[in-house]
Amino acid sequence: MMLVSRCLRLVLHDVLTPSCLHHFLLEFVGTALFLSASLSAVLIRPDLRSAASLTNQSHLSVGPESGAAPVCPLHVVLVFGLSVAMAALCVGGAAHLNPAVSIAMALTLRLRLWRAVLYVIGQLLGGVASAGLLMVLTGDVMPAVNQVSSGVQLHQAVTVETLVTLQLVLVVLKTTDISLPAAAAPLLVGLAVSLGHLVAVGATGCGMNPARSFGPAVVTLDFRNHWVFWAGPALGACLAALLNDLLLQPRWRCPKDWW
Amino acid sequence: MMLVSRCLRLVLHDVLTPSCLHHFLLEFVGTALFLSASLSAVLIRPDLRSAASLTNQSHLSVGPESGAAPVCPLHVVLVFGLSVAMAALCVGGAAHLNPAVSIAMALTLRLRLWRAVLYVIGQLLGGVASAGLLMVLTGDVMPAVNQVSSGVQLHQAVTVETLVTLQLVLVVLKTTDISLPAAAAPLLVGLAVSLGHLVAVGATGCGMNPARSFGPAVVTLDFRNHWVFWAGPALGACLAALLNDLLLQPRWRCPKDWW
Amino acid sequence: MMLVSRCLRLVLHDVLTPSCLHHFLLEFVGTALFLSASLSAVLIRPDLRSAASLTNQSHLSVGPESGAAPVCPLHVVLVFGLSVAMAALCVGGAAHLNPAVSIAMALTLRLRLWRAVLYVIGQLLGGVASAGLLMVLTGDVMPAVNQVSSGVQLHQAVTVETLVTLQLVLVVLKTTDISLPAAAAPLLVGLAVSLGHLVAVGATGCGMNPARSFGPAVVTLDFRNHWVFWAGPALGACLAALLNDLLLQPRWRCPKDWW
Amino acid sequence: MMLVSRCLRLVLHDVLTPSCLHHFLLEFVGTALFLSASLSAVLIRPDLRSAASLTNQSHLSVGPESGAAPVCPLHVVLVFGLSVAMAALCVGGAAHLNPAVSIAMALTLRLRLWRAVLYVIGQLLGGVASAGLLMVLTGDVMPAVNQVSSGVQLHQAVTVETLVTLQLVLVVLKTTDISLPAAAAPLLVGLAVSLGHLVAVGATGCGMNPARSFGPAVVTLDFRNHWVFWAGPALGACLAALLNDLLLQPRWRCPKDWW
Repeated sequence: MMLVSRCLRLVLHDVLTPSCLHHFLLEFVGTALFLSASLSAVLIRPDLRSAASLTNQSHLSVGPESGAAPVCPLHVVLVFGLSVAMAALCVGGAAHLNPAVSIAMALTLRLRLWRAVLYVIGQLLGGVASAGLLMVLTGDVMPAVNQVSSGVQLHQAVTVETLVTLQLVLVVLKTTDISLPAAAAPLLVGLAVSLGHLVAVGATGCGMNPARSFGPAVVTLDFRNHWVFWAGPALGACLAALLNDLLLQPRWRCPKDWW
Repeated sequence: MMLVSRCLRLVLHDVLTPSCLHHFLLEFVGTALFLSASLSAVLIRPDLRSAASLTNQSHLSVGPESGAAPVCPLHVVLVFGLSVAMAALCVGGAAHLNPAVSIAMALTLRLRLWRAVLYVIGQLLGGVASAGLLMVLTGDVMPAVNQVSSGVQLHQAVTVETLVTLQLVLVVLKTTDISLPAAAAPLLVGLAVSLGHLVAVGATGCGMNPARSFGPAVVTLDFRNHWVFWAGPALGACLAALLNDLLLQPRWRCPKDWW
Repeated sequence: MMLVSRCLRLVLHDVLTPSCLHHFLLEFVGTALFLSASLSAVLIRPDLRSAASLTNQSHLSVGPESGAAPVCPLHVVLVFGLSVAMAALCVGGAAHLNPAVSIAMALTLRLRLWRAVLYVIGQLLGGVASAGLLMVLTGDVMPAVNQVSSGVQLHQAVTVETLVTLQLVLVVLKTTDISLPAAAAPLLVGLAVSLGHLVAVGATGCGMNPARSFGPAVVTLDFRNHWVFWAGPALGACLAALLNDLLLQPRWRCPKDWW
Repeated sequence: MMLVSRCLRLVLHDVLTPSCLHHFLLEFVGTALFLSASLSAVLIRPDLRSAASLTNQSHLSVGPESGAAPVCPLHVVLVFGLSVAMAALCVGGAAHLNPAVSIAMALTLRLRLWRAVLYVIGQLLGGVASAGLLMVLTGDVMPAVNQVSSGVQLHQAVTVETLVTLQLVLVVLKTTDISLPAAAAPLLVGLAVSLGHLVAVGATGCGMNPARSFGPAVVTLDFRNHWVFWAGPALGACLAALLNDLLLQPRWRCPKDWW
């Protein structure tokens, strides 16, 4: 009992520093910023149905149940990649903005566990805040919820999510290990996010970031297959941590280092 | 009375330096350059109707009232992002080319108020000049006027404009605060402009820059909802200035600094 | 008479150095390389008509007179921008690959006139060589000839060509004047070329480079409106040279420097 | 006999070092990583037929024999370019990830022949591994097999493959010869790969990398015209090696160096 309270006090002592709270705020602001921008691009769109009726372009309206035009996949790819890059640049290049990244950082002992937990909470709150903002603004955030596409099976979806998170976390770990020119790290992460969306936008809408999937799911209370968007990224982050530290940039030199 | 004239004389003394007039000219030339390029891409286009009648592609003509093909949104995104980046590179990385940026710079005391006013005048004149050039050249600049899309409500439009200007100004403030390799700042600003267009091109055509909205509006005398393209960017610039200097890169260290 | 022969001997003495001939070869190889890549992308394409007849997509075939699918404008933009950037990188960042650039360099006394003439000859030969290669390979290079689009008037076409060359040459002059990281100059030039194509691809197919326009025109002997693709770039290059050296990066400090 | 065994022992002594085996693993992992990402993007896609039947978009379904929507060429271009760039960044910028690159490196004496053979084996195994993974996951990798498009003749296909490999290898040789900022080399190679796909995606689906073509061909046992995707890149690599070392960045100064 005493031990627990002592541990807790130590943790709180570490957590309640100005620096740590500042990082918590940066994660919250950064995630809210990039998700607000990305989700706005998907949700606030011209009503093509009414525009079509004006100009008589009836063959462009895509059915009576959807008034807005479908978004071009490349548009989605670019807006997510760029918004993550710009948000990471604005809040400082060291922000994670993604629970999967924080998990990998904690797993490879680059970040203390308590800090990682705090960062993840900040990211999830940021995701919920921006989804809530868009709910208030547009009244419907269903098109922004990550869903497994029709014709794509669950094990395919999980594999794709694992793969895209794997490459994202590998890039993030690399950018923290080599010295880069200023502003290069956010841009590289943005490119990795773009690549992830290029790969997965057709299959799952591309989660790759549990905070991004969690926000719209909470606001719409639509948790169908939601576990996919936690299991895939978590698995990808673990694989990336192992692959990077054991094989790509090994922390050991010869087999003897293992015992 | 004497005080006013003295102030005015001080201001004029500061304003009428060669350096300041040079900057005024750079803002004018830069804004005219990037807007001429962007608006040309939107306005000078092949007449698909006549082309269609030649090759019998009647289902591609989009109605009798518009002869030109609609522009692909990604085309608009890329042309605005790249033209701002290239213009900022040509006139030197320190140019603003956007009244919202000058407002934020003045608000955070990075620029004297009188200079900011002068810069804004230069930008607006540049916007009007390029819109006028295209009016002479094409006879119709209506497609280049920023308008709130059908199905998008005014408060949504203002919010989107605020959001995209917020991220743009945050990026600009960041690029002025950290030391970057040569030519990096214009490219980062170009990426932020691209992101803004990705987010807002569907909702408002993306203003984000009152000089860009003002030019075509003056030439066509079409000021419907024009306040949206001033209120949104101004609000975004103020929010970005506060967010950056108080939270992201605080100029204070501990609560005591506040009194 | 003696004076002429003396001048000529001096010129030849300067021209016939290994360094100068190497640059001539680099201009030839670089221009041939980037144009071969770009024109291949436009000319060697699947025959959609036969593909369509297989899968019964009759509404996608664009009429009996054209078997190949039309190229997406963004595809053209990216292939020209990237191929110029990669070719400039491969042959060394100092290559011009564009007569308009060589003209501006000679005009601003950054390059001797005789060298500029030699470079332009190399570029034109490179353009003809790559157009000839594609003529042999595909039997028809008409789709690669720069033409003023239907519905676009000649003075509009010249203005657009002038504008895009203006911004390209401004960027090139800037990259030669500031010190950049390795490989940055070719990429910036590639971005300026991309911007030019974004602006002008609809109006004229985007010349911006007389060597690019000259090659396919020679091979097809189709010189309709060909002067547009020489007058526009030449005018743009002169304007850029004046604008850059007098206003943007003035070589004079105070009005007294003028007399 | 003794000589052979001695040579073999020397080779094995060089090959069986930890450094060399590490590079072999990096080639395998890097190739598997970038191909898994790229092929996933092409193969794991929503079933538009069922989606169309739900929303009654019958004119979007492209016939009864193909359930999935065709992939936009620009999507393919971006996913291959970005996945190569990110994989090369993750496994360290010095990885080749392409047999054509290893051939050119061995030919220009930048790499020992035995190492090149080992790298090529690693790349081919990586290609087969990722194609096998996708075979297990989706049951059909036919859409990912490189094929000469209908209407494109074999000699055209070989020329295009030669051309795109030529420019790729020239860029790779350049990046190894000049000193670049960290992370710049993988990005430049990614841009060259993107350019290659822009040029060749219509004609051959763009091989440019025998490992990329070999993997899906082995898994589907579809070797029609497969030689095109070995002959073109090999020829391009040899031409690039000659062009670079003899002309662009000559290793000789004056004609006397030749004898």
